[in-house]
Amino acid sequence: MKPGNEADLPDSADIHLAHARIRHQVRHTPVLNDRGLDEAVGCSVYFKCENLQRTGAFKFRGASNAIACLGEQGLRGNVATHSSGNHGAALALAARLDGRTAHVVMPENSSVMKIESVRHYGGRVHFCAPTNEARAVELEKLVQQGMLAIHPYDDARIIAGQGTAALELEQEVPTLEQIITPLGGGGLVSGTAIATRAWGVDVYAVEPEGAADALASLQQGKIIEQFTPDTIADGLRAIVGIRNFNVISNQVRRVLTVSDDDICQAMVLFWQKLKILIEPSSATVIAAIRNHPEIFGGKKVGAIISGGNIHPAEWVRLTGTGEIR
Amino acid sequence: MKPGNEADLPDSADIHLAHARIRHQVRHTPVLNDRGLDEAVGCSVYFKCENLQRTGAFKFRGASNAIACLGEQGLRGNVATHSSGNHGAALALAARLDGRTAHVVMPENSSVMKIESVRHYGGRVHFCAPTNEARAVELEKLVQQGMLAIHPYDDARIIAGQGTAALELEQEVPTLEQIITPLGGGGLVSGTAIATRAWGVDVYAVEPEGAADALASLQQGKIIEQFTPDTIADGLRAIVGIRNFNVISNQVRRVLTVSDDDICQAMVLFWQKLKILIEPSSATVIAAIRNHPEIFGGKKVGAIISGGNIHPAEWVRLTGTGEIR
Repeated sequence: MKPGNEADLPDSADIHLAHARIRHQVRHTPVLNDRGLDEAVGCSVYFKCENLQRTGAFKFRGASNAIACLGEQGLRGNVATHSSGNHGAALALAARLDGRTAHVVMPENSSVMKIESVRHYGGRVHFCAPTNEARAVELEKLVQQGMLAIHPYDDARIIAGQGTAALELEQEVPTLEQIITPLGGGGLVSGTAIATRAWGVDVYAVEPEGAADALASLQQGKIIEQFTPDTIADGLRAIVGIRNFNVISNQVRRVLTVSDDDICQAMVLFWQKLKILIEPSSATVIAAIRNHPEIFGGKKVGAIISGGNIHPAEWVRLTGTGEIR
Repeated sequence: MKPGNEADLPDSADIHLAHARIRHQVRHTPVLNDRGLDEAVGCSVYFKCENLQRTGAFKFRGASNAIACLGEQGLRGNVATHSSGNHGAALALAARLDGRTAHVVMPENSSVMKIESVRHYGGRVHFCAPTNEARAVELEKLVQQGMLAIHPYDDARIIAGQGTAALELEQEVPTLEQIITPLGGGGLVSGTAIATRAWGVDVYAVEPEGAADALASLQQGKIIEQFTPDTIADGLRAIVGIRNFNVISNQVRRVLTVSDDDICQAMVLFWQKLKILIEPSSATVIAAIRNHPEIFGGKKVGAIISGGNIHPAEWVRLTGTGEIR
């Protein structure tokens, strides 16, 4: 998949512009702080609740910006992408709101809930074998038919859109010292790093131990190509993108890792204190803050909760808290 | 239990005063609107998410105001109440934040989760037999020991505190035509009706069919004393209070009822659209809006989501959506 039409990275002005473009249709999500949770992790955490974004994830920001950019460039017609998760549903809705149809290439082993979600928002699903190759071939077919490809994260328009979550967070809590986001393909963290560059905020990213390809790539100084993820955090299994890797290399202070067990404990903690279920990918940030008092202890930390697309029964199964009392 | 120290009802100025008193410690909860949910119910609904309030319910507003009033009156010492649910935890936290201890009389068959919640926030639990008589006797003992009684809803300070949720909702969405709240003892709806009187908003309340004591009382023109509730909405099983009944009689446009099945469907709808689990009591408002297009159709409606204290496994059990896909 060609990574978008715009070769360069967005700058902070592009993120402000993206916000002006999309704010009529994205939800201005709440920022929540809980003193009980603060006590449990040893610092003050302000959660930007993108789990409450439309389609249940921050992905709707980037998708909305990418679609709006097509309109500004006078590019009409349908769009295509590949996604096994939240980007597909987000692009489906953003496209539909602009009178387009999104065609989403999905591995044939995708979860039924995620397939239904893409269809629910008006997307057309194209199945492929669950390999990077098959996915690229299937997408190329759609592009040959005239569709406009929109990469899930390695795309300047997507990165700019994702950066608007940090923009809103900083406007609401201007005195943050640190921001942490989950890291899968790198769209969210690269947008966040670019958005916050002017404010002197330290940006951290967190990967599951079983999908720590970005950390491995940083250590090798180049993107590792071969990688088989193994984590419950299904939103973070992607391999880091080229643009995203460049931003992470230069502007992210440190990439941390957490275990799947840490993630489950953080899901339970967040529910106990805030009464909200979050998907495993989102819980990585809480787990990382809890594991690293030497970094976050006593600080004022912004944390982006990336998504809430988990079935309650799956949440119960993963966390093992099925006991009804 | 004597219904509070203040015999009269609050007026709208008291609710503004309550807000000034408590806003440093209550969470300014988000107001959420979802276009997909609007389409499903046929009107525009703005949800005031008190499920995201501290202690997981609006009850923390009234409890905070009652405790603050004690301080203003120079009344020191511990407080006592009876509650099988959210009021107990809310009073426990509000008391602790003011350097007091809350003693909570709870029926011995209360859920372990709710007992733990009271203790978690620093409250002391006193068990009694699960009858109104036993509860009154046990509470009277505590009052004899010098504790200050704070009724869960039939109390002017509590009513004023609960009214602050509607105040914030109206400040955020000033063009509402209608507001609907759940109705148990009547603290929330009476505060809401008083808060909104000046704005020309029609106030509706909703009870479960199996706990429709307020509707029966309205029909008889006096509060019915004998009533055995039968509903999954555990927060709405109380019998309407005297002050609350007076306000409802004069200022609430209509009391609606919904079945437990309606409630479960509304819980699922809210989760599908907003990715948030709510307790059955909260879902009554969505069910009522959905059932009554002749009242709400095409209107701009405020709905107070009263609480989120439900275990995810219990949510799955009640809604029957345990299938993981």
